[in-house]
Amino acid sequence: MRVSVIGGGVIDRETAATARAVGRELGDRGHTVVCGGLGGVMEAVCEGAEEAGGDTIGIVPGPDREAANEYVDTAIATAMGNARNVLVVLNGDAAIAIDGSTGTLSEIGHALDFGRPVAGIDTHDIEGVAVVDSAAAAVEHVESAVGER
Amino acid sequence: MRVSVIGGGVIDRETAATARAVGRELGDRGHTVVCGGLGGVMEAVCEGAEEAGGDTIGIVPGPDREAANEYVDTAIATAMGNARNVLVVLNGDAAIAIDGSTGTLSEIGHALDFGRPVAGIDTHDIEGVAVVDSAAAAVEHVESAVGER
Amino acid sequence: MRVSVIGGGVIDRETAATARAVGRELGDRGHTVVCGGLGGVMEAVCEGAEEAGGDTIGIVPGPDREAANEYVDTAIATAMGNARNVLVVLNGDAAIAIDGSTGTLSEIGHALDFGRPVAGIDTHDIEGVAVVDSAAAAVEHVESAVGER
Amino acid sequence: MRVSVIGGGVIDRETAATARAVGRELGDRGHTVVCGGLGGVMEAVCEGAEEAGGDTIGIVPGPDREAANEYVDTAIATAMGNARNVLVVLNGDAAIAIDGSTGTLSEIGHALDFGRPVAGIDTHDIEGVAVVDSAAAAVEHVESAVGER
Repeated sequence: MRVSVIGGGVIDRETAATARAVGRELGDRGHTVVCGGLGGVMEAVCEGAEEAGGDTIGIVPGPDREAANEYVDTAIATAMGNARNVLVVLNGDAAIAIDGSTGTLSEIGHALDFGRPVAGIDTHDIEGVAVVDSAAAAVEHVESAVGER
Repeated sequence: MRVSVIGGGVIDRETAATARAVGRELGDRGHTVVCGGLGGVMEAVCEGAEEAGGDTIGIVPGPDREAANEYVDTAIATAMGNARNVLVVLNGDAAIAIDGSTGTLSEIGHALDFGRPVAGIDTHDIEGVAVVDSAAAAVEHVESAVGER
Repeated sequence: MRVSVIGGGVIDRETAATARAVGRELGDRGHTVVCGGLGGVMEAVCEGAEEAGGDTIGIVPGPDREAANEYVDTAIATAMGNARNVLVVLNGDAAIAIDGSTGTLSEIGHALDFGRPVAGIDTHDIEGVAVVDSAAAAVEHVESAVGER
Repeated sequence: MRVSVIGGGVIDRETAATARAVGRELGDRGHTVVCGGLGGVMEAVCEGAEEAGGDTIGIVPGPDREAANEYVDTAIATAMGNARNVLVVLNGDAAIAIDGSTGTLSEIGHALDFGRPVAGIDTHDIEGVAVVDSAAAAVEHVESAVGER
């Protein structure tokens, strides 16, 4: 399946390690990462996915797909600015939120609005987001939630 | 100025009264209401604005502007579904959130992301949203916050 | 009704006079102008509409509604770049194209795709666009075409 | 490079053969097809690309990526209706238009507006579109035009 991974564009080392672990876990289990294509959580999760041989899609806000980070396999340019956040979560079967600020909050809102299961690691405390504390737990949660639908 | 008023599409009588009061307050003070154009909070706030002689803009998700509620003065069709939420908050100088579910959450995220001051009445508890308990307090908060920028 | 007026952003004096005449004609007959909100044909048609006391809506490509020309009554920001062209023609009941280049071509395509009647003055020669040679003829054409639907 | 292939959603056998030939030619030369993901030219070009081992991206108008035809490798859902036409041409380095009606016309307009070279086979007669009469000529034209930029 496809999992949208959303989170901060500027992150500390620990958050990067978590995002990379989520990417590896998703790649190992054969899932495709969908993300916003830029830096921070978006880059770390793609790096992890690549390490595990997984596929990655990056949907960038600007008009130039070359803006995507180097670990994105398929970059999609939108020239729509923040409205591309909607496409990031629309194109996953579930979402994992890691850290993140107001952009991530908008993506959590859209993901829940589209009925996507959402797991969260150190992110906004929102009703409907399953709080987990590891990459493995996040992936297990979304696999299980999508499987049950 | 313009104030985006966001909130639930299906609401109880008390919430409708609050939204109508926000609309009247905004209309009285010469502000234009921007909203998603449909029912619930969107309709109640437009009704209140109209009672006070204020202007209203409704940005609807579908392709037909006739879907806007009867109190909308200028309806804008988008055919973009939930991505229109971005436009609702982009087109206000500040936002007032009343009640609301996941769609409202996405709008709060986008509003904060755009740097808009946000006041909230009985809505999501989000860092950056000023909690107020009346229509007058909501309007005073956003007037003051926009004035200080 | 609402009429989308589309055309070049950089125009000569004669084209500006034509666009202003279209705006006056639309305003005189009680129609609202919808346009892309910027300069050239967009500004001239709004100026003409204002001279006749008509209403104007400008849907601008950037994130700032203040970018709209001074004759726009209701400006809508989109931050969607050229994708806003779709909204310009979606929000009219018919379209009048005046002069224009590739952006106008995309708008003619979308307008026809949405089933909108299109009248053209000195613009692209496209099947489905009624060629007219005056502001009055353009407005008469779209009034008649919309009335017959 | 990536080539956006645009054209009619409902086509005759001859047009389908042309589109399939364009897809094979693009796949043979290592280019990725970007298209609107649905039927007609969009499906035939993807089928041809797949026969040649090429990659295909389908950007569909609706909210469900499963709507993409079976030859699409990476489907992107948009829920934006016709506004997705903008993304189809934004995501290619050049475009090839085959047959097609008003939607294709809008895409030609956007492609030219983005400065993309466009080759056309039996399509709209538009200034700026290079008229060619075979799949090979179309691919050669866009390769050469992109190379010269």
